[in-house]
Amino acid sequence: MKILIAKGAGFCFGVKRALDIAFTMAERKQRGVYTFGPLIHNPQVIEKLRQEGIESIQDLQHEGIRALIIRTHGIPEDLMKEASLKGYEIIDATCPFVKKAQHYAKLLSEDGYQVIILGDREHAEVKGLISYAGNDAIVIDGKEELPLLKSRVGIVVQTTQPVEELQRLVGRVIAQSKEMKVHNTICNSTALRLKETEEMARKVDVMVVVGGKNSANTTQLASLCASLPVTTYHIETAEELRKEWFEGIERVGLTAGASTPDWIIKEVEEWINDRGGEQGDGT
Amino acid sequence: MKILIAKGAGFCFGVKRALDIAFTMAERKQRGVYTFGPLIHNPQVIEKLRQEGIESIQDLQHEGIRALIIRTHGIPEDLMKEASLKGYEIIDATCPFVKKAQHYAKLLSEDGYQVIILGDREHAEVKGLISYAGNDAIVIDGKEELPLLKSRVGIVVQTTQPVEELQRLVGRVIAQSKEMKVHNTICNSTALRLKETEEMARKVDVMVVVGGKNSANTTQLASLCASLPVTTYHIETAEELRKEWFEGIERVGLTAGASTPDWIIKEVEEWINDRGGEQGDGT
Repeated sequence: MKILIAKGAGFCFGVKRALDIAFTMAERKQRGVYTFGPLIHNPQVIEKLRQEGIESIQDLQHEGIRALIIRTHGIPEDLMKEASLKGYEIIDATCPFVKKAQHYAKLLSEDGYQVIILGDREHAEVKGLISYAGNDAIVIDGKEELPLLKSRVGIVVQTTQPVEELQRLVGRVIAQSKEMKVHNTICNSTALRLKETEEMARKVDVMVVVGGKNSANTTQLASLCASLPVTTYHIETAEELRKEWFEGIERVGLTAGASTPDWIIKEVEEWINDRGGEQGDGT
Repeated sequence: MKILIAKGAGFCFGVKRALDIAFTMAERKQRGVYTFGPLIHNPQVIEKLRQEGIESIQDLQHEGIRALIIRTHGIPEDLMKEASLKGYEIIDATCPFVKKAQHYAKLLSEDGYQVIILGDREHAEVKGLISYAGNDAIVIDGKEELPLLKSRVGIVVQTTQPVEELQRLVGRVIAQSKEMKVHNTICNSTALRLKETEEMARKVDVMVVVGGKNSANTTQLASLCASLPVTTYHIETAEELRKEWFEGIERVGLTAGASTPDWIIKEVEEWINDRGGEQGDGT
């Protein structure tokens, strides 16, 4: 059995940066340091952080807050202001690409555009984005019908959306708008990871997608694979692997989301290898 | 035989306005009044204007120019300036919607966007538009491959393009751009005329499309009909009609481009009626 590992699997720039910030804070052993919401969408990493003394809280009324690390997905503007007003030290680990999307949403709204956010309205990043996008902003998930739009429409995109969704949206919007300004805020590493995963999935018999079940970009990798003629498993850790998945299988592909740590990917790889696989060259 | 006539057939706002301007000038019987290029794309109307003493010229070196009527499609910015410098009286009959597209092309270029003009690069309107769009502007006809684009792209559209072409273009552009600003400068009357013609074409056995063979919007009506299961004839005047086209036919649809005068549409209708048709209610 041959295991192919996607080159772009694992931590992206924004996640690496956020973890650097959080673990540096952890080393200082200060009390009262919290992340606002889970720092990234990976339960195993969140558990590690907790062991280092940094817990995640859901509201600003929590007792004993001194410093607040803002999660990679960002938080709504009013909460950011409220945290500042309460005098908490703000350590902003918002992914710089998400920050850029927030900035563009605000600019578009200030320029008088009705802002559309392409993304999942239940996702933390989108909940943050919409707070910058003005009162008439709407979220569109790509599948739903468009409401009646104003004549000047601005678009920003949840950084982990597939570009095909954006392509479809802009085509639909321009048919009913006089002016449309689009910031393609899709993160390159997401697009590359999707592309690489798709290519790999076409070459193997089984795809193993590793990462948080609550991670949008990992779930997207799994959905992509599931839509192709390849057997797909989405797991968070090696513990979920089953020997029978690999019986009689020649080629296994391994990919992981942007919030999946290397040590989990390594564990999964070793687990599969121990059951008789040999590692490929990753091409 | 029943003849259906499209409600939106014939002169659009911009053409009516230009002819009002030109015939008002003609009434003054001044010498040295010319149109720069044919005022509209209809040979029969151009001939009428010529009989009234207003000819079309192709260059500014023509002898005896006193006043210059700018054609509905507009002219390049440098020619407009040159005509002013030569001291000619400029009577601008550029369609206000084309004027708007020129204005947006200039604004986008001034804002640092690489401008794409969606349209036919051989068309007078597009030749005018590109002159406002900056040095790195390109024309895309909707079918051709996109070249490598800059990261900020602005789009304006030849006013007579079908919206489907614009929808396809924006989808292709956003896949390779970080920012895209689109002015949907497609003229509503073009879109409505196409829609109405398509609906009519689906209800009749024969479609007669009346208008200049050099008229982009008329040619588009004819192409649209030809792509549907209906026999289509594109004619400029009633003289081209043939009796055998209507033998055994129950329903005939009649539509016309934005530059086709009512008297030509009327002649065509009467010709068909004389061969045994009765007029429908246009629904």
